[in-house]
Amino acid sequence: MLRIDHIGIAVRQMAESNELFRKLLGEAHFKVETVEAEKVATSFFHIGESKIELLEATDPESPIARYIEKRGEGIHHIAFEVDDIRAEVERLEKEGFLPLNREPKRGADNKLVVFLHPKSSNGVLVELCQSIQQ
Amino acid sequence: MLRIDHIGIAVRQMAESNELFRKLLGEAHFKVETVEAEKVATSFFHIGESKIELLEATDPESPIARYIEKRGEGIHHIAFEVDDIRAEVERLEKEGFLPLNREPKRGADNKLVVFLHPKSSNGVLVELCQSIQQ
Repeated sequence: MLRIDHIGIAVRQMAESNELFRKLLGEAHFKVETVEAEKVATSFFHIGESKIELLEATDPESPIARYIEKRGEGIHHIAFEVDDIRAEVERLEKEGFLPLNREPKRGADNKLVVFLHPKSSNGVLVELCQSIQQ
Repeated sequence: MLRIDHIGIAVRQMAESNELFRKLLGEAHFKVETVEAEKVATSFFHIGESKIELLEATDPESPIARYIEKRGEGIHHIAFEVDDIRAEVERLEKEGFLPLNREPKRGADNKLVVFLHPKSSNGVLVELCQSIQQ
């Protein structure tokens, strides 16, 4: 685990939330990206060596729509950067963590990602991510 | 806003969670501290320029006990380091954020802290913190 890559925050209205987090962090978002496979629109803000990722559902069946329906807006996940995601998933599985996908999938921000089930990590949805070499 | 100082995570059993996060992050916690005024025990892990802060209630009336009762274990707050907390609170109040305490109070890890009400920040409990000069 190298650093916190980003904190994912589920929001209802991206435009309003982009403005809110611009005020909070003192700087506008630097990127927007839609991840079709996950049915989410994202926007990213810099904060030190990490980022804030806002997540808005693009479909009522999106995991983000279901999350907001159940728990309201708020912090959705924490993502840690790793340098070898497959090795890290193997290590964590041996330690008792439950990967939601064993094979890394393509996420936003040019990353390979694996999620760990919150029930294996104190109620925290953990994302592991590794930058894809360009 | 300089960086993510830490992510606060509400846990039921500190000893078990310390072990869980040691496995997750690959390194043991480096500090424990009780904040009597908040009725919480805390432990801290390094991750890059940030920290993970585990929070366990020391009393059934602790805000952490009430949080877990309502929402279960999980991510409780995100803390941003600032270099002038009073100026930052004033700026954010003008922008429409709602400080829970206007006068900074003493938190864990040698910090002055102010919390912002989640209803003013997309459901996210935000902590601002400033290191106390030794």
